[in-house]
Amino acid sequence: MAANTISLSLSSNLAASKTLNSLQTRGLIPPPTIFFPLGSAKSQPGNLSLSSRFRVRASASQLINEPVNSMTSPTVVHVDLGNRSYPIYIGAGLLDQSQLLQRHVHGKRVLVVTNERVAPLYLDRTIDALTRGNPNVTVETVILPDGEKFKDMDTLMKVFDKAIESRLDRKCTFVALGGGVIGDMCGYAAASYLRGVNFIQIPTTVMAQVDSSVGGKTGINHRLGKNMIGAFYQPQCVLVDTDTLNTLPDREMASGLAEVIKYGLIRDAEFFEWQEKNIEALLARDPAALAYAIKRSCENKADVVSQDEKESGLRATLNLGHTFGHAIETGFGYGEWLHGEAVAAGTVMAVDMSYRLGWIDESIVERVDNILKRAKLPTTPPESMTVSMFKSIMAVDKKVADGLLRLILLKGPLGNCVFTGDYDREALDATLQAFSKS
Amino acid sequence: MAANTISLSLSSNLAASKTLNSLQTRGLIPPPTIFFPLGSAKSQPGNLSLSSRFRVRASASQLINEPVNSMTSPTVVHVDLGNRSYPIYIGAGLLDQSQLLQRHVHGKRVLVVTNERVAPLYLDRTIDALTRGNPNVTVETVILPDGEKFKDMDTLMKVFDKAIESRLDRKCTFVALGGGVIGDMCGYAAASYLRGVNFIQIPTTVMAQVDSSVGGKTGINHRLGKNMIGAFYQPQCVLVDTDTLNTLPDREMASGLAEVIKYGLIRDAEFFEWQEKNIEALLARDPAALAYAIKRSCENKADVVSQDEKESGLRATLNLGHTFGHAIETGFGYGEWLHGEAVAAGTVMAVDMSYRLGWIDESIVERVDNILKRAKLPTTPPESMTVSMFKSIMAVDKKVADGLLRLILLKGPLGNCVFTGDYDREALDATLQAFSKS
Repeated sequence: MAANTISLSLSSNLAASKTLNSLQTRGLIPPPTIFFPLGSAKSQPGNLSLSSRFRVRASASQLINEPVNSMTSPTVVHVDLGNRSYPIYIGAGLLDQSQLLQRHVHGKRVLVVTNERVAPLYLDRTIDALTRGNPNVTVETVILPDGEKFKDMDTLMKVFDKAIESRLDRKCTFVALGGGVIGDMCGYAAASYLRGVNFIQIPTTVMAQVDSSVGGKTGINHRLGKNMIGAFYQPQCVLVDTDTLNTLPDREMASGLAEVIKYGLIRDAEFFEWQEKNIEALLARDPAALAYAIKRSCENKADVVSQDEKESGLRATLNLGHTFGHAIETGFGYGEWLHGEAVAAGTVMAVDMSYRLGWIDESIVERVDNILKRAKLPTTPPESMTVSMFKSIMAVDKKVADGLLRLILLKGPLGNCVFTGDYDREALDATLQAFSKS
Repeated sequence: MAANTISLSLSSNLAASKTLNSLQTRGLIPPPTIFFPLGSAKSQPGNLSLSSRFRVRASASQLINEPVNSMTSPTVVHVDLGNRSYPIYIGAGLLDQSQLLQRHVHGKRVLVVTNERVAPLYLDRTIDALTRGNPNVTVETVILPDGEKFKDMDTLMKVFDKAIESRLDRKCTFVALGGGVIGDMCGYAAASYLRGVNFIQIPTTVMAQVDSSVGGKTGINHRLGKNMIGAFYQPQCVLVDTDTLNTLPDREMASGLAEVIKYGLIRDAEFFEWQEKNIEALLARDPAALAYAIKRSCENKADVVSQDEKESGLRATLNLGHTFGHAIETGFGYGEWLHGEAVAAGTVMAVDMSYRLGWIDESIVERVDNILKRAKLPTTPPESMTVSMFKSIMAVDKKVADGLLRLILLKGPLGNCVFTGDYDREALDATLQAFSKS
């Protein structure tokens, strides 16, 4: 294995194999509300104690200091990043539990950043959750246009304009209410405003709940590339109210599932198998299935991020399908395809290339194609994408280091991947040609 | 003392008094090249060991691994911030010592950010220093328009444009060559580009050498306020070549001295007394006097920043005169007055207010007025500044917390200050009225 290859094949040695087993065991033990639990789970309750070895903790127990009420107790995933650690609360109706949000608001002034689509649906409830029983808090709002094509500097400036015009000081809190675009922009605004203010995320799409809710990546696009300008910045907390998914369009629902599927492929074979049994339940927004998929996705991402916050290696594996996918988004134009749609097609391309390299069995290629199709996601890039477009755009990917394009590719049994620049260039060319018209 | 007052009067208890004494003692011991050493210094060499109590270390010795050559060894001030620590090299002709820079360049690609005034003077020498004997390194440059009025988002985007068009990846290094505006903008660009790349500062003004070279504050202005958008981001190293001051206009030279004088006033009475003896030598660019003033300023700032990187309290004291000064810059228009000129007038106002509160002797008021006049700095705001302009602009200062304007004011003997919101509002009004026409 070349020096520039970081091996992430967990089964490559005994210790890693134990890690994989215990991770899987942990994931197998369902919370009380879980949909369609695997039969083997309940037979191994003793293994729960293994989870103490991990820096990601999940609990469905009543929160400490939480007044007893009739509402559902949230599931909590803790993201452990030293003094930047934070909880993710997951559950139905959490926007009605005002104490969850209020304990994380610093200062008396809040700026809610949302968009034109989400504001009519959830802004009033969010303001109510922030202020109910707490008259000292005042809330400003800025409502941005909706869509990836507005994830730019001009739109970001509207957040700064509002914050400065409202004279918000360093003790204020920014709240992102919306999908990934809102979370990324509000997070970068919070990181930059007065060189950093408090930040809370209320993600309202599956994509934002399972991806941008963990790990602190914030930023905006440049006309020449996605997320080229940004910061690593952690929130005070993330509140995932699964009820907000009831208003999510089907296409966006499917888009978010592309990231959920990714976690299974790169590090959690059992989760992938669970998805193969439950993908239709997720599309139908079964609340218990959603809560489980979101929790397990967040746990997987939190486990990776807590080991590699600044993406020196391991964290890059979360970008399976993203290098091809970003090329599609950039080449086809931001906003034409949803992020997860581009990632889905990109994942198929990465899996195809892994197979051409002889690194995985054909059965994995088929299972990936199958589950993505069942999720109603594209499995080929748009017809307008050419080989030269892919090459040109991928050359400015953030994972290029000293001129070498590194990719996340599957290698070994289901649930194992590598992040490497050490691959046969002909396999990449063959994949690009197979998936492009010209 | 109210809860919102942070006491920074070092003589307020025994331990703090010891700190002050040892700081002063340390500062009194001049390096080999020092201009006009105080007579008392050499009588206390044993006290040098006290400096080990501080996290700021200075040395004029040959650097480890440095090839022996005929050039002057630089003075080194270490800024200790854990894994974000970095050295400041200070000396004449350091731009000719290519190994100093090259040891801190990461990767093979460098982007030098400079401006139209500095580029003709020092860009070629900087590129030579980066590449001499090191053909693997390639250098891109972006030359921005000169001046505070270009410290904005539009100009910052030119840096991102150049970086992305040049396909710079995460392993590149951004180099700021110029004054404080270039340092702040290049630093914020480095903090944000691909969510953070390596950064080196080559400050070419006194202001940048004694202020922005230490502490990692980066950012840009908003039309409603200075430095409202930015990041805390530390460089890999700072290289201060005092020869670059030979081309600095007199007005900018004086402007930088306003910050040097500030360090004496807030925490280093002996340094202030040294300045009272040497201010004309500094204006005349005596190299030894400059090197000493820059070193001692950096040590003072580094000592503060290493205790309070994110400005939760102590670090705010570095803003003596800056709240009034920022109001002048904003109200009068960016670029009309230099930053240090506004700070000088702001310092006089802060000192006036301190005196009105009964916190300092009249002799301090006179000494501050005197030294600023000898440095050819303004001691009153522009005539167009009104009381209401001051109040309106100061209300959006970053030091406002929950609506309360906190100020840095002198209190006690020379060299002591407080950062507080606990002061008589009438004293502030009286100062604003005394220094405004209407």
